[in-house]
Amino acid sequence: MTEKEALKRRIDAAAGREKADLVLKNCRIVNVFSGTVEPGEIAVKDGVVVGVGAGYEGRETMDVEGRFVAPGFIDAHIHIESSYVSPEQFGRMVVPHGTATVIADPHEIANVCGLDGLRYMLEASKGTKLNILYAVPSCVPATPFEDAGAKLDVADMEELLADARIFGLGEFMNMPGVTNAEEAALDKLEMARRMGKLVDGHAPGLSGKELNAYACVGILGDHECQTAEEIKERIAIGMYALLREGSACHDLRNLLAGVTEANSRRVLFCSDDRQPKNIFADGHIDHHLRICVEEGFDPVTAIRMATLNAAEAFRLYDRGAIAPGRRADIVLLDDLKEFRAHKVFIGGELVAEDGRYLPELTIADISTVRGSVNVRNFSADRFKVKLTGNKARVIGVQKDGIVTSKEIVTVKTDSEGDFVFDAAHDICKLAVVERHHGTGRVGVGLLVGYGIKSGAVAVSVSHDSHNLIVAGVSNEEMAFAVKALIAMEGGMVVVKEGKVLAAMALPIAGLMTTESGEWVAGRLKALHEKARTELGVSADVEPIMTLTFMALTVIPELKLTDRGLFDFAEFDFVPLEV
Amino acid sequence: MTEKEALKRRIDAAAGREKADLVLKNCRIVNVFSGTVEPGEIAVKDGVVVGVGAGYEGRETMDVEGRFVAPGFIDAHIHIESSYVSPEQFGRMVVPHGTATVIADPHEIANVCGLDGLRYMLEASKGTKLNILYAVPSCVPATPFEDAGAKLDVADMEELLADARIFGLGEFMNMPGVTNAEEAALDKLEMARRMGKLVDGHAPGLSGKELNAYACVGILGDHECQTAEEIKERIAIGMYALLREGSACHDLRNLLAGVTEANSRRVLFCSDDRQPKNIFADGHIDHHLRICVEEGFDPVTAIRMATLNAAEAFRLYDRGAIAPGRRADIVLLDDLKEFRAHKVFIGGELVAEDGRYLPELTIADISTVRGSVNVRNFSADRFKVKLTGNKARVIGVQKDGIVTSKEIVTVKTDSEGDFVFDAAHDICKLAVVERHHGTGRVGVGLLVGYGIKSGAVAVSVSHDSHNLIVAGVSNEEMAFAVKALIAMEGGMVVVKEGKVLAAMALPIAGLMTTESGEWVAGRLKALHEKARTELGVSADVEPIMTLTFMALTVIPELKLTDRGLFDFAEFDFVPLEV
Repeated sequence: MTEKEALKRRIDAAAGREKADLVLKNCRIVNVFSGTVEPGEIAVKDGVVVGVGAGYEGRETMDVEGRFVAPGFIDAHIHIESSYVSPEQFGRMVVPHGTATVIADPHEIANVCGLDGLRYMLEASKGTKLNILYAVPSCVPATPFEDAGAKLDVADMEELLADARIFGLGEFMNMPGVTNAEEAALDKLEMARRMGKLVDGHAPGLSGKELNAYACVGILGDHECQTAEEIKERIAIGMYALLREGSACHDLRNLLAGVTEANSRRVLFCSDDRQPKNIFADGHIDHHLRICVEEGFDPVTAIRMATLNAAEAFRLYDRGAIAPGRRADIVLLDDLKEFRAHKVFIGGELVAEDGRYLPELTIADISTVRGSVNVRNFSADRFKVKLTGNKARVIGVQKDGIVTSKEIVTVKTDSEGDFVFDAAHDICKLAVVERHHGTGRVGVGLLVGYGIKSGAVAVSVSHDSHNLIVAGVSNEEMAFAVKALIAMEGGMVVVKEGKVLAAMALPIAGLMTTESGEWVAGRLKALHEKARTELGVSADVEPIMTLTFMALTVIPELKLTDRGLFDFAEFDFVPLEV
Repeated sequence: MTEKEALKRRIDAAAGREKADLVLKNCRIVNVFSGTVEPGEIAVKDGVVVGVGAGYEGRETMDVEGRFVAPGFIDAHIHIESSYVSPEQFGRMVVPHGTATVIADPHEIANVCGLDGLRYMLEASKGTKLNILYAVPSCVPATPFEDAGAKLDVADMEELLADARIFGLGEFMNMPGVTNAEEAALDKLEMARRMGKLVDGHAPGLSGKELNAYACVGILGDHECQTAEEIKERIAIGMYALLREGSACHDLRNLLAGVTEANSRRVLFCSDDRQPKNIFADGHIDHHLRICVEEGFDPVTAIRMATLNAAEAFRLYDRGAIAPGRRADIVLLDDLKEFRAHKVFIGGELVAEDGRYLPELTIADISTVRGSVNVRNFSADRFKVKLTGNKARVIGVQKDGIVTSKEIVTVKTDSEGDFVFDAAHDICKLAVVERHHGTGRVGVGLLVGYGIKSGAVAVSVSHDSHNLIVAGVSNEEMAFAVKALIAMEGGMVVVKEGKVLAAMALPIAGLMTTESGEWVAGRLKALHEKARTELGVSADVEPIMTLTFMALTVIPELKLTDRGLFDFAEFDFVPLEV
């Protein structure tokens, strides 16, 4: 069918000359343009809303029984890999909650598998009804201070940026690169401009002139706000403020204090990451809506943040509203308080009902992205350190788990200067083992506040370079954990005294599985339980997620990569020894 | 300077490492993103705002003395030709009122000169600091019921649409073409889609399913709303509602009843046409703002309608706000009540101060667009009609002047059936003389309510085909007027008993002059005076403007073209005789 024929069919149906495919009757339509809720009918043809109003006939009619009808929700920033499941399985979880579109930044898998990873994500997205728009990650590796599995240079980015499913460059985490107008950053920004593509942002802690410098190149938004004041600051200078409520960071309630009716048009919702357990318990973007209404926001204003605002921000003029010409991405809600999705349509097709994803999943082949764990020259000795004194810089685990503190601590050492675990002090060893190119590099550091008293925990999910990261009470326990991960082709393990107590294999790049979200939730539950009950990890520390962020150099304050200890404020390596 | 170098300069200035070109201090900044007014400073570099906030140093500093600082205003729909002056002169008039960008639809000149006319308008726009974005007119000729000077087919449109200064297709006046999914209309719509260009709208009186059919192809907005209800209806189905306050149509106050805080983000301002007299007396988009505040609207909401909303609607991401990275199109206002522009900057350059346009005008060559009046086989006899009876369909002049009524009137005729003027009845002859290709065609009709008692008035401005239109009390008076127009190469004349009482030459396509707005206002004043005092045209009829709309077939109810009498409801010709 030509584009002209498609237009004609659409017009004929809108005009009432031809039957619609589907007519929804007895709707209370949430109109994001007028900001009101109005009773009415919706006619859908060829996956698109063609008419709103009475008098349409459809080959199929559905009585919506007075339910509220909203546009499908949009998650403005997410790393699908952080759900630990493949895109098909991810869609299966979130679509029943009303999500129709996600804006995904696949920098996790890009850091492991480069272009192959991005191509896999694009291919896998065909197996779900969820609309996934991808970024080309802008900073792979995230910083020059770590060794990722791949490097994306401007030429690589340009090749992918031309794809229509790619909206632009992913969160530009190299803030100094922008604010200092560095050559490599300018190359990327100029390329995006030239190709008319967007650039997403990441600007934790930026303010004043630095924030102006970051924003003046046209960077779209920031999801890293920590305070209401930062929300207001970003909005004021023209960046969208993304209110993040995810598994790792869930600041929505605090951040809402920065949102007013007047500025809400510049506010979007995102999860950044969303684990299966949280999706099953609370939902996805529906969870944002629930919280907003609890905090006193008008439900239609909240729904706008979840729909029209994101469509405008990402220039997706074909969605974000229920209106003639826009995609029939539609959610039927029982009320505007709990936001429970009774039915979900994507492109006019019923894809979820009462929390159940209806279509069959077609799982894409993963052979190009497995076998990603390549470790060479490894042994327990790689974890040895040689301290001359007894004062060390130690990474301090903080409550929220992503931001760490930098501590100076007196530690116990053996005759060779290696750290010795003492159960009386809550300090353990932490190590990052390079696992992409078999370089043999191992970065060793110390962690305080994790709580571990025996055994070791190791994961191959370690933002952003996703080397293996392991925390443990001895070099031997840690080495056993690492070897288990290698054998699994990546994933997560909890080990103790030569036994694997719990494990989850993540063969897709060491980051994801094609198993279901329920399977992942079950495995994670076991890993957490064993880490706590058998290893003694603190009750108020998330045993797995904490480790996944200990190598994240772009978030303050002290982190560890395969090359050593990294200080965010200095934006450089610092010695373990003080 | 490369794009990269430009980005670097911008970043360096935003970061405060390099001096800005200009720093505005002591501003009360109207922030259209946050919806607030905040004190602050603005740093400008290379024509772009690089920073908002304190601590910038500039090569030039300007103390704004606490004035309000708003983004330059945007007129979302205008026909520059309807000001009767060339683009350079038009810019000279509106810029001092704070207008920085206009979205212009040059279908008037396109109807006379085709592609040459469009190229002239693009060329002339280089001679003004006003940013003019043009549409490629979508309907030239406006309907198949008239003879314009040119025809723009899809191939012509496609050639121009590729130009970056062209935002898309102009107001799609052929509504049935869209709603009936006609081949030719589909060709244009498909082309615009394929090229990623916008399509502007024109949908007077459309409602319900027809409106859905018109909107479902993605048409951007409608400026033809007559009621608050129509405003709400367009907004609800996803079209922008343009509030029109121009010289011909000035419905803003009525239409504001359809605007709420909640839907105002989908509302824009436009003039459609704006004559010099009105610009001098009341201003331009500043006039919209004044009225909104008088009607109780929040001034920042009003300013958003004049700035950010239009930038979003037309996808002009580089303007519409005072924010890093956006054009330094800036207006200094004494207050948010009168909206008098103290100073105006466009692209960081001071272009107007205290109502005076500062830059020198460079007037473009008009040789490709003059000599546009080609009338052949013309004589007074061409105005004769042959009525058999004495009942005729007569066009009724209405108060607002654009919409006419259709009247059935008993008329006086001579022995050959020609209409005879009787001063006791307010009926005169009206005729349209084809003037583009010398076809010799003349359409003759009758007009009631114009008031003329002697002489004739003739103009070469006659929407949309711009043939010569003349009203008068006898074939001879009318012929004399027409001949005067021909000699002038187009314009406007008031004649009586063989004398030209007043005249204004419009050598650019018979539509515009390169003289100033003041010159035009003076000439129009004389034309109006003579028409009223010497010819007896009614005091409550605008003598010139009324005639310019008598041939406008796309507006109801009864109109006259060179081919005859046209009935809007039938959308076809009807005989003069009943």
